[in-house]
Amino acid sequence: MKNYADLWLGYSEKKNNRDCKALRNIRLSGAPESDKVVINAVNELKTGLKTMLGFEPEITFGPSSAPVNATNGKEILDSEEYKISLADDAVSVEAKSGSGILYAAFDILRTIACEKDFAKTYSEIRTVRPSNPLRMLNHWDNMDGSIERGYSGESFFYENNEIVINDRTREYARLIASVGINGVVINNVNVKQAASYMITDRYFAKLAELGEIFAGYGIRLFLSLNYASTIEIGGMDSADPLDEGVISWWKDKMAEVFKKIPALGGFLVKADSEGRPGPFTYGRTQADGANMLADIVKEYGGIIIWRCFVYNCRQDWRDRKTDRARAGYDNFMPMDGDYHDNVILQIKNGPMDFQIREPVSPLLGGLRKTNQMLEVQIAQEYTGHQIDVCYLIPEFKEILGFKTYCSEDNDTVEDIISGRAFGSRYSGIAAVTNTGNDFNWTGNYLAGANLFGFGRLAFDTGLSAEQIAEEFVRMTISEDDRVVSVILSILLPSREIYERYTSPLGIGWMVNPGVHYGCSVDGYEYDRWGTYHRADHLGIGVDRTDKGTGYAFQYNEPNASIYNSPEKCPDELVLFFHHLPYTHVLHSGKTVIQHIYDTHFEGYEEVLEMAGKWDSLKGEIDDGIFGNVKERFGRQIDNAHEWCDQVNSYFFRKSGIADEKGRQIW
Amino acid sequence: MKNYADLWLGYSEKKNNRDCKALRNIRLSGAPESDKVVINAVNELKTGLKTMLGFEPEITFGPSSAPVNATNGKEILDSEEYKISLADDAVSVEAKSGSGILYAAFDILRTIACEKDFAKTYSEIRTVRPSNPLRMLNHWDNMDGSIERGYSGESFFYENNEIVINDRTREYARLIASVGINGVVINNVNVKQAASYMITDRYFAKLAELGEIFAGYGIRLFLSLNYASTIEIGGMDSADPLDEGVISWWKDKMAEVFKKIPALGGFLVKADSEGRPGPFTYGRTQADGANMLADIVKEYGGIIIWRCFVYNCRQDWRDRKTDRARAGYDNFMPMDGDYHDNVILQIKNGPMDFQIREPVSPLLGGLRKTNQMLEVQIAQEYTGHQIDVCYLIPEFKEILGFKTYCSEDNDTVEDIISGRAFGSRYSGIAAVTNTGNDFNWTGNYLAGANLFGFGRLAFDTGLSAEQIAEEFVRMTISEDDRVVSVILSILLPSREIYERYTSPLGIGWMVNPGVHYGCSVDGYEYDRWGTYHRADHLGIGVDRTDKGTGYAFQYNEPNASIYNSPEKCPDELVLFFHHLPYTHVLHSGKTVIQHIYDTHFEGYEEVLEMAGKWDSLKGEIDDGIFGNVKERFGRQIDNAHEWCDQVNSYFFRKSGIADEKGRQIW
Repeated sequence: MKNYADLWLGYSEKKNNRDCKALRNIRLSGAPESDKVVINAVNELKTGLKTMLGFEPEITFGPSSAPVNATNGKEILDSEEYKISLADDAVSVEAKSGSGILYAAFDILRTIACEKDFAKTYSEIRTVRPSNPLRMLNHWDNMDGSIERGYSGESFFYENNEIVINDRTREYARLIASVGINGVVINNVNVKQAASYMITDRYFAKLAELGEIFAGYGIRLFLSLNYASTIEIGGMDSADPLDEGVISWWKDKMAEVFKKIPALGGFLVKADSEGRPGPFTYGRTQADGANMLADIVKEYGGIIIWRCFVYNCRQDWRDRKTDRARAGYDNFMPMDGDYHDNVILQIKNGPMDFQIREPVSPLLGGLRKTNQMLEVQIAQEYTGHQIDVCYLIPEFKEILGFKTYCSEDNDTVEDIISGRAFGSRYSGIAAVTNTGNDFNWTGNYLAGANLFGFGRLAFDTGLSAEQIAEEFVRMTISEDDRVVSVILSILLPSREIYERYTSPLGIGWMVNPGVHYGCSVDGYEYDRWGTYHRADHLGIGVDRTDKGTGYAFQYNEPNASIYNSPEKCPDELVLFFHHLPYTHVLHSGKTVIQHIYDTHFEGYEEVLEMAGKWDSLKGEIDDGIFGNVKERFGRQIDNAHEWCDQVNSYFFRKSGIADEKGRQIW
Repeated sequence: MKNYADLWLGYSEKKNNRDCKALRNIRLSGAPESDKVVINAVNELKTGLKTMLGFEPEITFGPSSAPVNATNGKEILDSEEYKISLADDAVSVEAKSGSGILYAAFDILRTIACEKDFAKTYSEIRTVRPSNPLRMLNHWDNMDGSIERGYSGESFFYENNEIVINDRTREYARLIASVGINGVVINNVNVKQAASYMITDRYFAKLAELGEIFAGYGIRLFLSLNYASTIEIGGMDSADPLDEGVISWWKDKMAEVFKKIPALGGFLVKADSEGRPGPFTYGRTQADGANMLADIVKEYGGIIIWRCFVYNCRQDWRDRKTDRARAGYDNFMPMDGDYHDNVILQIKNGPMDFQIREPVSPLLGGLRKTNQMLEVQIAQEYTGHQIDVCYLIPEFKEILGFKTYCSEDNDTVEDIISGRAFGSRYSGIAAVTNTGNDFNWTGNYLAGANLFGFGRLAFDTGLSAEQIAEEFVRMTISEDDRVVSVILSILLPSREIYERYTSPLGIGWMVNPGVHYGCSVDGYEYDRWGTYHRADHLGIGVDRTDKGTGYAFQYNEPNASIYNSPEKCPDELVLFFHHLPYTHVLHSGKTVIQHIYDTHFEGYEEVLEMAGKWDSLKGEIDDGIFGNVKERFGRQIDNAHEWCDQVNSYFFRKSGIADEKGRQIW
């Protein structure tokens, strides 16, 4: 009986590598046998090989170095690096920590699980160093068990305002460690009500236990912090970061918290954002707020991850000067260099909010003296709610590869968040996660590819979206080459297909307000969120050029000039930067309106094709997986159909311009 | 200290009529002294006169007739009629039941409370007979305490799935009896979960008690019934109205229910509507379902009120043939004459759903052989959520006065629902009520005018909207003539003002989906509810003529021809019946687009004026009332501002036609 919760760790009997003698003797060096991460690694190797190849390896231990107490990103990377070398009769793993050993173990197991030739794969010594020091998952789990923007059941961390620890806790740690995640924020960044009490006696024991389980898999526990804790739980009347009373309260509180939860890595803070309290209330800067907390947690090795999602969420739609896209840069750039060295700014990939297509945030490449972490979202809030298939790794690859021109070389987003560009003390990448207590963790089984893929990519940004997808399919669904090729042909273009049937040319939104699934072209057009398309009977788009909001000039050159020009701006972002007539001709040679019609008809057709491809797998893959994804495809077809017809009807009704191909528009 | 919950029964010391000798001796005839309704009437007279005039009247009793057991509408009206005659030294009330006595008592008290000259008012013998046999309030209260479409707090009938009986219960009965209500449905027509168990042992005792309290004020208790009770609580697998097992279950159940709740008047049923179960599931007609239940409850004097709100709520917006407006007529007309004589069809005033402007339902004037009850909504679902002031009595007057041409004379809606037109066995009027456990029952204090007004109008359709409003203001807020005149100048035009700043020319909707407050022009345009405006760059409106859905021909002539013609159709309904170019010239001489611009700018201005008028009352009325309404006006101004600008921007952006007056459109 298949255990769907195993995902890519659901090892089965393998054909290849059964005769590989070397695998019978595995020697682990660099961390003591007694290290609990090493113990978990050994267990993984033993049970994994036993299941897949039919034998348990002999594990021996080489010399072990002193444990690393990493206080910066470079030290983290040093400690997590591993080397795998192969002799005729043994495999040797060298590392500087249990984590390095664990990652090496999963490397070996992945190779076997994918039926790769082991000897060939490791014919040269493989030295692997993670690309990013911090590779985190952010849970938006609430203590009542609900998950903000959760599409796969309820929280597995919380139930009725209590912390839950059960078999699933360890399974989760194992799953995410196997793809290289080394930090988890377990509670929603919107810290309300009960969650404010996470840093009180009521929850310490459970958090300490959870922290230890995570630590056994090389994962550090983080908490989202209520910035106004002095008020909410401290009974004070201020949260002013320069107030002595406030500082003193936090000193006592942090001493208590780190003593009671030894494995704690630090805190994530959403301040002055969407109604959350913050330093602005007291006329202080974001740096004042972040630094105050960072200074206090420093002695415990703690870090403060401070979100840059600060904007005016009570905008008047009539106001065309205020530009939400500008807000992150406007709020955070002036203080570049002011943030203390255990503060990290966590920056969403785009300036808006995880739309299917956005330019890269200009803070990435703007900030040069500040620790930075990229935030992406694998919870499919705006990308199909884990009903629609939308494999996001191609998008993340684009983002990571984006040239910011912040320096002569090492100027991509990848260079910045790895720490290479500016020698940051801390840096990395975080994803708002897509997990819940559904039987398969992510609702749609194929959404597992985003969880797997995010971890793999965060660990090794050199991997391609295709390599990652293939590993996922082979480890999780099937090793049949036809099956693999069919599923890859579904996953790989799925993000662009989703883009085609939803909002066009980078304009974003057009979703049902609140729920963020399904089409509502004007859903946010007259609302307070700063998310407008400005369509009238002549044209559409937001003028963010020098004649408009000037947002384009938050980028370094030549990006600024490229984005500023309707001729040079890439088609896929042209309505993000420009208000254009429907008759404007794109680089593709099509007019804007014809592009809208064509992509929507095509996108819907492509969904039908994807669903057909999936149908062709019936009987060739596990029935449970088949049925799970088929049911979602049914809903995706309906969704794409509505998007296609509503968008086309909306713009036809508004512009009066007919489809050149005479297709049915309602 | 003012008790805001008293509303119009908050008697205070009066100047006039203190010397009226007749009021010291009141003689009540027609019902025994021991009748509990008479006892309540006597208490009202004694405490009311004592408070207002400083003396308690001597109450004596004349001969009493045998109690009436009304089994049809005429008998109800006979029993509720009263006669007040005045001698020099005594007032004489004659009636045929306690209810008649009670209504007479409130008539006398109202006269005094309004400071009318008593002797003059009753100088001629006053014989009053209610206009409608059934005058009901429908509560959409859920057993968890929430109220569907409730805008004034939680339910005062339910809390945590239990029935609540407290002081407020009796106060409520007293309040609504004082304006002539004689029936109340206490639970939501959407009968779900716990509410299905209302007809089981768990609730009988409380319901019996509640029924008795109501009966003491001449009010009959009704319940909304889950049509599928045989399945939900009976453990059967069918609710087929022709199934012997189903019928037998209901026979037993009804015997039990009427035995346990002796005061029960009958049931309200929403079947086959918006996802509720019904006879259609079993291939049976609405008449089959209603008659089955009616036949069973008949021996207990019970009646079945069957809602006609049956339509396809899963329409495809692309489909221009299906017309939700047609549904009521299409579903119910074919069975005219088939409904048994203790079935009443309850018909919403318009064919859609309580929009600010709709034509009158063609079932009213269509059905000739069926008992009918008009359903209106004083809960301001689509008319401002009791935030915006919207005095609805002028609308109800229009509806009641609408000529259906169903016969030579006696052809108005008022004639039909009074029973005059067709000699119906039962008939009347029901309102979805606007009450909750707010301190003043209705949230906005001025919304109390709709509760008061509905009762008064249902009892005496001859009253004008202005008379009713004046009574309300004098009894509830102030007797100062300036105050009265200011508040009347707010209330009386408020419905037309609301219409002006919201959806134009009868098209309706354009509200935020789900919540139904605030503007979203396309909010329901691509949805499944059959509620479309069909606006494109050239024009707007739904073609319901003979060239469109044919709905216009559900009316009798000449209404059908009038509505069918864009030239003859009244302006205020022209977009309900016709799809017209923005340049179409209305009877007013304005184009459609200019009408939209003008009414929206005007409507918003008028709201500002209303708010200013209210501000002028500061210090002249009770501070609590002043502040309550002022706070709502603040929100109404914001709402009207958004409606005005969003509607104008939407149509300007779509049509490209400029405002003739060059006002700011965004």
